[in-house]
Amino acid sequence: MNFKNELAAWSKLVDDALDRYLPKADEYPTTIHEAMRYSIFAGGKRLRPVLVLASTKAVGGSVEKALPVACALELIHTYSLIHDDLPAMDNDDFRRGRPTNHKVYGEAMAILAGDALLTLAFELIASSAAAFSLDRVNLVTLEIAQASGSRGLIGGQVVDMLSENQAITGDIMEYIHRHKTGALFRAAVRAGAILGGADAEQLTSLTNYSEQMGLAFQIKDDLLDIEGDEAKLGKPVGSDVKNQKSTYPSLYGLEEARRMADKAATDACAELKIFGPEAEFLRSLMHFIINRDH
Amino acid sequence: MNFKNELAAWSKLVDDALDRYLPKADEYPTTIHEAMRYSIFAGGKRLRPVLVLASTKAVGGSVEKALPVACALELIHTYSLIHDDLPAMDNDDFRRGRPTNHKVYGEAMAILAGDALLTLAFELIASSAAAFSLDRVNLVTLEIAQASGSRGLIGGQVVDMLSENQAITGDIMEYIHRHKTGALFRAAVRAGAILGGADAEQLTSLTNYSEQMGLAFQIKDDLLDIEGDEAKLGKPVGSDVKNQKSTYPSLYGLEEARRMADKAATDACAELKIFGPEAEFLRSLMHFIINRDH
Repeated sequence: MNFKNELAAWSKLVDDALDRYLPKADEYPTTIHEAMRYSIFAGGKRLRPVLVLASTKAVGGSVEKALPVACALELIHTYSLIHDDLPAMDNDDFRRGRPTNHKVYGEAMAILAGDALLTLAFELIASSAAAFSLDRVNLVTLEIAQASGSRGLIGGQVVDMLSENQAITGDIMEYIHRHKTGALFRAAVRAGAILGGADAEQLTSLTNYSEQMGLAFQIKDDLLDIEGDEAKLGKPVGSDVKNQKSTYPSLYGLEEARRMADKAATDACAELKIFGPEAEFLRSLMHFIINRDH
Repeated sequence: MNFKNELAAWSKLVDDALDRYLPKADEYPTTIHEAMRYSIFAGGKRLRPVLVLASTKAVGGSVEKALPVACALELIHTYSLIHDDLPAMDNDDFRRGRPTNHKVYGEAMAILAGDALLTLAFELIASSAAAFSLDRVNLVTLEIAQASGSRGLIGGQVVDMLSENQAITGDIMEYIHRHKTGALFRAAVRAGAILGGADAEQLTSLTNYSEQMGLAFQIKDDLLDIEGDEAKLGKPVGSDVKNQKSTYPSLYGLEEARRMADKAATDACAELKIFGPEAEFLRSLMHFIINRDH
């Protein structure tokens, strides 16, 4: 199966699993369950769950069994988007071309829907206990909780918020990205590896891959805001410049930012040299991320 | 040791543990850690963690080892209060006589502090793995996640919000209480019991105790809003009547509500008949709750 087909197949697997794991929209109290489903099924790329599956496959684990943990990562990612979009935070009315959660369900319900998705993520991880040895599930819980907390994702969001409309250093920009987006990519890859029974060398290689991949992803994001096509992106370009946001291109220049993204992508793939064809998907994914147009 | 002294000793144990488990206020990014600590150390009764400790003691478990899970319950309780107080929800400026989290740190930080406390709760539970067999930790994680999610605490908050300024039936009022406050009491007692190695009979008795105790707690709360002393409560009385809120006294009358509270308290203690002096604290706690003046 080629990369695009496998990516589509895994996204479908994740979507079907999410549909099974989330309370149905008609379960009482219905509004919260509708609100949770609205944002989960809003057309995300499912990058974090796919990373879990690809990483577990690279070490010979079962993709099927890793689905609850893969979906948990998507629940956490989605909760963080719902809360980020709130009027008190980024105050965004649209995401991926659709009204944001609070525009449809109101602020209170959006806050609670986010809370409920975060809580359900940990229930899902714990429910993996039937499929894996408990010590792996325990390690994965710790990994994901740490990556999502005030020393991970939330810490990145805090520093991003406090840095708004300010000139920041490259170090602070890197802190924001490493925490706000990087931490969850890293946790996704490590969770898949741990569930699949990675040895120490494999875990180190995959961790390094995830960090370089996260960096390349972020620089590409910054580049798309300058060079991207609004129609393909589904959002206006140039918002970083307009908001005077520090980005890789603004701090290092366009040429150097492109070079940094390419280098991170190359380094990411170099980390996979201990793997054979079982990691081909992770290699292709890195190319896909660096060449994407949205 | 008499009940009041033991309650004070356990509260102190919980406070000290929370201080160890929470990131220090000067850890970067400091604002979020200050905000988390502000609400955690705002003078709560520590009822939920104490229930974990009392329940584990009743079945012969170690109070010391149960501390991370006990504290996790307090983190979840506190996060739910921070989010409930937000302008989009109950819009409360004060809690326990102090400005609410968002009044001090702003709405965005209050939302993130709540998110971070919820996330840290699951990290803490997972960190118990060194002290207990992993299957107990896994059961406790499931128990607490379910009690906190859209089928528990959050579901109760949703129905409470949607029922505002409406006449509701006794059934709906009961749904709200059983979920919004009852679910976490129940999870606290069951978590303590499971960690302590309760057998099936003990777990059933303690579960029934927690449900009757939660009911008595809620009716007493309603009664205090009518008969309480503002100075001791630290908040104005009569707010339920003013907000036309359905309560046990408003639906069943003052006399009947008092009788229902007493019956629930008596039933709760009757559930403990299979236990000896090791459950004395839980019995005293029930008396304490029903006779409290704040």
